[in-house]
Amino acid sequence: MTNSLTELKHQTLTVPSDGLRLSSGEFLTEVVVAYETYGTLAEDKKNVIYICHALTGDSHAAFRYSPDDPEPGWWDPIIGPGKAIDTDKFFVVCSNILGGCKGTTGPNSIDPASGKPYGAKFPLVTIKDVVCVQKMLLDQLGIPELYCVIGGSMGGMQSLEWSISYPDYVRKCICIASAVSLSPQALAFDIIGRQEIEFDPHWNDGDYYDNADKPAKGLSRARQIGHVTYLSSAAMENKFGREQKEGNDSIRSGKFSTSFQVESYLNYQGNKFVKRFDANAYLYISRMMDMFDLAKEHGSVKDAFRDTQCEFLIVSISTDWLFPPSQQLEIVSSLLSNRKPVSYFNLDSQYGHDAFLIEYDDLGPGIQAFLNGKVDQGAQDSGDRMDLDHICAMIKDGSHILDVGSGGGELMYALKEMKNISGICLDVEFEKIVECMGKGLSSIQLDADTGLGIIEDNSFDCVLLNQTIQQLKSALQTIKQIIRIAGYGVVGFPNFAYYKYRLSLFLRGKLPVSGGLPFEWYNTPNTHLVTVTDFKELCRRHDIRIEEIECLADDVLGKLLISMGFENLGSDRGLVAISRQRIKA
Amino acid sequence: MTNSLTELKHQTLTVPSDGLRLSSGEFLTEVVVAYETYGTLAEDKKNVIYICHALTGDSHAAFRYSPDDPEPGWWDPIIGPGKAIDTDKFFVVCSNILGGCKGTTGPNSIDPASGKPYGAKFPLVTIKDVVCVQKMLLDQLGIPELYCVIGGSMGGMQSLEWSISYPDYVRKCICIASAVSLSPQALAFDIIGRQEIEFDPHWNDGDYYDNADKPAKGLSRARQIGHVTYLSSAAMENKFGREQKEGNDSIRSGKFSTSFQVESYLNYQGNKFVKRFDANAYLYISRMMDMFDLAKEHGSVKDAFRDTQCEFLIVSISTDWLFPPSQQLEIVSSLLSNRKPVSYFNLDSQYGHDAFLIEYDDLGPGIQAFLNGKVDQGAQDSGDRMDLDHICAMIKDGSHILDVGSGGGELMYALKEMKNISGICLDVEFEKIVECMGKGLSSIQLDADTGLGIIEDNSFDCVLLNQTIQQLKSALQTIKQIIRIAGYGVVGFPNFAYYKYRLSLFLRGKLPVSGGLPFEWYNTPNTHLVTVTDFKELCRRHDIRIEEIECLADDVLGKLLISMGFENLGSDRGLVAISRQRIKA
Repeated sequence: MTNSLTELKHQTLTVPSDGLRLSSGEFLTEVVVAYETYGTLAEDKKNVIYICHALTGDSHAAFRYSPDDPEPGWWDPIIGPGKAIDTDKFFVVCSNILGGCKGTTGPNSIDPASGKPYGAKFPLVTIKDVVCVQKMLLDQLGIPELYCVIGGSMGGMQSLEWSISYPDYVRKCICIASAVSLSPQALAFDIIGRQEIEFDPHWNDGDYYDNADKPAKGLSRARQIGHVTYLSSAAMENKFGREQKEGNDSIRSGKFSTSFQVESYLNYQGNKFVKRFDANAYLYISRMMDMFDLAKEHGSVKDAFRDTQCEFLIVSISTDWLFPPSQQLEIVSSLLSNRKPVSYFNLDSQYGHDAFLIEYDDLGPGIQAFLNGKVDQGAQDSGDRMDLDHICAMIKDGSHILDVGSGGGELMYALKEMKNISGICLDVEFEKIVECMGKGLSSIQLDADTGLGIIEDNSFDCVLLNQTIQQLKSALQTIKQIIRIAGYGVVGFPNFAYYKYRLSLFLRGKLPVSGGLPFEWYNTPNTHLVTVTDFKELCRRHDIRIEEIECLADDVLGKLLISMGFENLGSDRGLVAISRQRIKA
Repeated sequence: MTNSLTELKHQTLTVPSDGLRLSSGEFLTEVVVAYETYGTLAEDKKNVIYICHALTGDSHAAFRYSPDDPEPGWWDPIIGPGKAIDTDKFFVVCSNILGGCKGTTGPNSIDPASGKPYGAKFPLVTIKDVVCVQKMLLDQLGIPELYCVIGGSMGGMQSLEWSISYPDYVRKCICIASAVSLSPQALAFDIIGRQEIEFDPHWNDGDYYDNADKPAKGLSRARQIGHVTYLSSAAMENKFGREQKEGNDSIRSGKFSTSFQVESYLNYQGNKFVKRFDANAYLYISRMMDMFDLAKEHGSVKDAFRDTQCEFLIVSISTDWLFPPSQQLEIVSSLLSNRKPVSYFNLDSQYGHDAFLIEYDDLGPGIQAFLNGKVDQGAQDSGDRMDLDHICAMIKDGSHILDVGSGGGELMYALKEMKNISGICLDVEFEKIVECMGKGLSSIQLDADTGLGIIEDNSFDCVLLNQTIQQLKSALQTIKQIIRIAGYGVVGFPNFAYYKYRLSLFLRGKLPVSGGLPFEWYNTPNTHLVTVTDFKELCRRHDIRIEEIECLADDVLGKLLISMGFENLGSDRGLVAISRQRIKA
């Protein structure tokens, strides 16, 4: 429980004399922004993190309003002193969005022209307008740049828009469980939800602020539909299963009402929401999400990100079906094809879309590593076994490299110290991604066997596949992907034809377990044993050009055998540079 | 396009003088059933297949009412002469369910007591009541038994209920994309959908049949919500993506309406549905689905199936999130633990829940193989390499066997011919499942690496794992699963220590490619090479008792080596019977 306090502040924006021009072409003559801050602004004002809230969020992201305030802000578990978004270090700002109902100008604000609430006369606003107002706020607060902008769900749409609209203002961008546009399924639920409000007779075309009856039923039902989509099936199963309330006292008296707890839960959520939210604001914000479409606006998703200058962290949630991981991977793919620095991980959570408000055990360290990662933190451990000099010699200066099966990024880190290269690490394990980000390396969480397909042709100059091929399910497919992604690759692998391994099988009838192959047969991740000779044959058969081969050994006899020309026998590992075969004339 | 014709028939059921007693304790004094038939009843009347329809279906499952009828019945692609459900062979019956609105007694029928439509005075009916009425219909038609009952979605609930309520009447049961109860998520959407109708002022507590205004808006919206849940996200993406209608002419004129095609599509679906369905019937049938809960009724899912006597085929759909595959696997697991004959496959489809009405390319052959599979169809190919006699000698008479990695069931088929055993085949490939079912063998589609966890302890007496372990990702985990599932297992594998293999690696520095190991290193499914010595050591280390070992070879030198005691060198394959280690005193 934090004792940190905050207060809700209001800033009236200075707008041109004819008002702030919105994307729609309409004008707002008066714009007030409600916001909060946490932590202390550094002297150089370069420690600012901006938090973008989601559909039904507000500016109260963290801390409490008073010591006896029962509830802290909505992201308090990861914003605060010593927390993932560390307020001892960063100055964190969060504001209510334009069109909202929590203090920033929106449909429930007074229209200066009429002296009455705007209602449905409020102009349609877009994510771009929202971000524009956020930028004006920061400008008026004298903030010269954003260290990072962060948002989940619709907040993630805003953080992407920040990176595109103000590329030289943003250094880092985190986008969680979001997308470059809503899927048709999410769109459908949005449309159905909005109609609940519009079809409520008390909505009265948005003009209800002075009426006794508000469109509470419509808003409650819109929230209920939305709420189901934020949860995974497993989360609902765990939350209430098919439990029925005691005594079959249904919350409604009708014949078709049920006593299932899910019905009373939804009802409770709907009623709670009505007390804190405005129906018109719900309509405006939901419509704003529908209209967000970076591909449509910029020609393609790739084009949308062309001029961004920040580092990205994209986060998906395994059970999110409203914003499924495929949508976040689309963002990652587009950033990679633009050769932008991007990290990515997938939160393995059962909580569905809502996980970004629940699953802090992984999200916190992930965000923290990305925020604090520095290139001078990972010097150790670039050890001998990586054959660094040999690999380095095979890579051209200035290359953009993908290191497949990077582990904690030791090789990439060491290469960056030795050579002028840029690159992205790739590993299947979340912990390795965090380790890489902690070293200041961009790193994406993908399975090398199944995940490389999302990377577009020629997104890289070179792919490294060091001590990884023997663990893949499909070595050949991966080699083909390397050639497609980069045209050039460096593959290092243990040579199963090494004389010590041969002797083990030949004499003892047992598969070798040793330094280079330290596993028992039944638990080894090395599922494709390969020899230098075998690898050469693979390349020959599949029209892959071998640019260079290095056969390496550490022991005296091995080295001797290699020097005598018995490379396949003497080397315990091979290093092969491959490239796309030239088209025959 | 079929030219087969059918007609809608009506049967008035003979009910007791005080009426048909329903599960609720209420009575219906008059029950009429609307039904159709396709094909010809055999002389022994034992060729009857009963089709159970889903929530919004009806008795018109196939054929046309007249030669110029524009649309055939809803499952016409797989019911007809020569089709998967072959009407040249089977007599197919489908009736509208009790509580429906297509001719069978339901809320829009006239209540004999009042002379007016029942409306919401119609008693609540359950799936059990529905099936009871179906049974009464068949009894009155003089049908002595059902060769098969088939249903998808809510129809699958009915087919399961058939197998439980009338165990000695049903020989085969097919249940597609269904469950033993709705998930809380499906429940939530059901509840929200029903409320749309109840909150429509024109619903008028169910009394609207004589009114000019019907609850069309509520029914349309209930249908729209349901419709989104029947589609997968990918299916919606393919169907209309984020396409907008030309000229931005939104289907509604409001500010918050959109021009997205998904909005007009949903609207179209809703309006179409209102023309063919009754709002009260929707409420009754949807409520019936909510109430279905075999675990609650019988104590557990396992107990529910205890007395069933039929063979089962359970089908799931990979992208179905309303009835996810985990729910069908729960049924399979319960049937296996009851040692019932059950086949299972997963339709790999992008269409979501609706796939059972779309994806006939796989569903058709799957159903056909299950319907027609006979134990005398698979005699060939029980070849030498299966080491049949050796395996047979390791299995006790009367055993219930799981054959993991069964392929097309050759081994199981041959064992059944040699010995008094029962069993289930297991393979990861759909085609193999169909092949097994075609031989009259029960067969479930699971990945041996990841899927065995759904099988309960001691569901079998023996697990066979022949020529499969070397293809698994985790050999040790699978061995442990075998011991858990059956306590006894027979494992056959290629011996990598066979002298020919050793020589290949030792002399040529290449991994062997030969009869027993016919793949190149980079495309081999054999990812865990193992030797007899290695396997013994695994058992020793993990407290697995070795009951018996057979080292086998086909070549002369191999046989000689074995006879001289060099088993690990001479054998190209090993066969080991293992069991749970006895607890030490």
